[in-house]
Amino acid sequence: MPYARRREALRALLPADVDALLVTDLINIRYLTGFTGSQAALLVHATGDAASLFCTDGRYTTQSEAEVPDLERLIQRASAAALAARAGERGVRRLGFESDAVTVDAHLDLAAAAEPVALERVPGLVQRLRLVKDEAEVAAVAAACAIADAALADLVAAGGLRPGRTERDVAYDLESRMRGHGAAAPAFETIIAAGAYSAVPHHRPTDADLRGGDLVTLDFGALVDGYHSDMTRTVVLGRAAGWQREVYDLVAAAQAAGRRSALPEAEVTAVDAAAREVVVAGGHGDEFPHGLGHGLGLQIHEAPLLGPSGRGRVAVGMTVTIEPGVYLPGRGGVRIEDTVVVRADGPQVLTCTTKELVEV
Amino acid sequence: MPYARRREALRALLPADVDALLVTDLINIRYLTGFTGSQAALLVHATGDAASLFCTDGRYTTQSEAEVPDLERLIQRASAAALAARAGERGVRRLGFESDAVTVDAHLDLAAAAEPVALERVPGLVQRLRLVKDEAEVAAVAAACAIADAALADLVAAGGLRPGRTERDVAYDLESRMRGHGAAAPAFETIIAAGAYSAVPHHRPTDADLRGGDLVTLDFGALVDGYHSDMTRTVVLGRAAGWQREVYDLVAAAQAAGRRSALPEAEVTAVDAAAREVVVAGGHGDEFPHGLGHGLGLQIHEAPLLGPSGRGRVAVGMTVTIEPGVYLPGRGGVRIEDTVVVRADGPQVLTCTTKELVEV
Repeated sequence: MPYARRREALRALLPADVDALLVTDLINIRYLTGFTGSQAALLVHATGDAASLFCTDGRYTTQSEAEVPDLERLIQRASAAALAARAGERGVRRLGFESDAVTVDAHLDLAAAAEPVALERVPGLVQRLRLVKDEAEVAAVAAACAIADAALADLVAAGGLRPGRTERDVAYDLESRMRGHGAAAPAFETIIAAGAYSAVPHHRPTDADLRGGDLVTLDFGALVDGYHSDMTRTVVLGRAAGWQREVYDLVAAAQAAGRRSALPEAEVTAVDAAAREVVVAGGHGDEFPHGLGHGLGLQIHEAPLLGPSGRGRVAVGMTVTIEPGVYLPGRGGVRIEDTVVVRADGPQVLTCTTKELVEV
Repeated sequence: MPYARRREALRALLPADVDALLVTDLINIRYLTGFTGSQAALLVHATGDAASLFCTDGRYTTQSEAEVPDLERLIQRASAAALAARAGERGVRRLGFESDAVTVDAHLDLAAAAEPVALERVPGLVQRLRLVKDEAEVAAVAAACAIADAALADLVAAGGLRPGRTERDVAYDLESRMRGHGAAAPAFETIIAAGAYSAVPHHRPTDADLRGGDLVTLDFGALVDGYHSDMTRTVVLGRAAGWQREVYDLVAAAQAAGRRSALPEAEVTAVDAAAREVVVAGGHGDEFPHGLGHGLGLQIHEAPLLGPSGRGRVAVGMTVTIEPGVYLPGRGGVRIEDTVVVRADGPQVLTCTTKELVEV
């Protein structure tokens, strides 16, 4: 179980002026304990697990015994306030809290409960740990990617992409096939965008029919053990027109340039720029209105942001997407996206479906 | 379109000392504008829609034109800070913000962006409006309930509840049938809990087989136009044992008592108490460890809480669940849940599947 190790790594990041961190973000709690319920809090004491305390409510008594066997447990509603109130008796004088997750009103409640213990803003510490995945996490992301690959292959083989089907039909078909391959759920709301809709980056599937000649963008992923995959492919129904192939080739070239640049120590802005330069040189810079990619793991979108406003550097063990797109309003668009894990010698692609232009 | 009317109703609730409310909670933004994207902010000016402003980013330019045609739109990332920065030029001197949704760190950013406009804590205003549903909202919840009813009827008719199937199989089958009946998605992670697992209120489906003699709890719902349904039924695979029937009859009686009490003007604590007294009188008060129910609408859990710690009164137009349960660790449990809408003459049940004990 990696949880005790992760809590120890968190302790190493704690600012010297706090005696404990009150973790209230549920994803961070899952990362640090394995708990998967919907209400909990965790006091990570600077001195070690022996002085730490996990809290959830009565709905999760049995579940928390199974999932969090290695920490002292308290069963109480309003778990965050309950732990804040008990910090003092564990020798805490200054208690860090996740100021990027706690609302202004919740902070007032916590401060009152913690009294006379003082609360200190300590944002983003667990997220910093989560940036770099361990091998079990990479394996879960890879499994989710493999499921998405298999589902798409099945869909195409079964003739599931054909004129007359609706975007919604295709989305449901793809999601069902992911479930059949073992996904707990789709990683996010599946995007199937046909024809002119393929120019809408976050289009939701409609009852519009797929038609011959359409560009069809499929952006989807699977959820496995809490970890997400994310992949986009764009295909043509029938023979690609000249302009479709031109846009496709440009996006594919940009995607390859982005992938090649996702090297350890690269600035995240440089990875974005490597792909963006290709699109700009192709005359479509204004039609690529989003960042190149994002981290993913226990959340579908997490740090780092690979975009013009991103910060920091790529590191070994990060799982990120590389997903440039070009969108021509009223005509159609192309996006090509992989999930990759950064290795010492460069990115390893986890979404292995071909990136050649497929005419189905 | 109800959105202009809802914004007008929000203005009527604005504290006198703020000139506008900065809405950042995405569910509240959807309620006030119809926007369904994942990043946006809304400045509701006290003087009317003419001085109000909606903001989202470039991914949603096209979508926001279609969904929010009746408000001035700004396309900018970090939309909340962008609107805070523009409040002053619209004559705002004191700007309300949703202190129950904005994190401590985001508040610091907003305050800096708004300068010299002052930020004021204004929590829960939109949620207060959302407590009482209009008829279009009730219709969406009712449609979601009807889909859940139809899916369960199909599942039972098809012999989908039988020994040898796994909990996970049944969950997937039920979700597929809801999709087939028109659900956009499940309303939440479907709970199928068989045998001893039925004593775990928030059990997640496993690969455990259903077995003859098991109590099987099915807790599930559908999502339609953003609105949720929520229903639980507990059945027995084969003939019910005496203790199973006894627990079932007790929970059914408690559920009926709760429903009868969900009358306009009733204290929410009284509705919970009406059901809880039946369970206590039956000797199982300690085995009913959660509240009686909750509001639902654009969220699966929203105000009011029908529980011992709830506050306020039931009102006409509220959509709430009534869901007592009794859980006997190691043996099994029963929960029976309806979604109801409160009418002037009492609750109307929207989840119409029988609450007689079904032996499948």
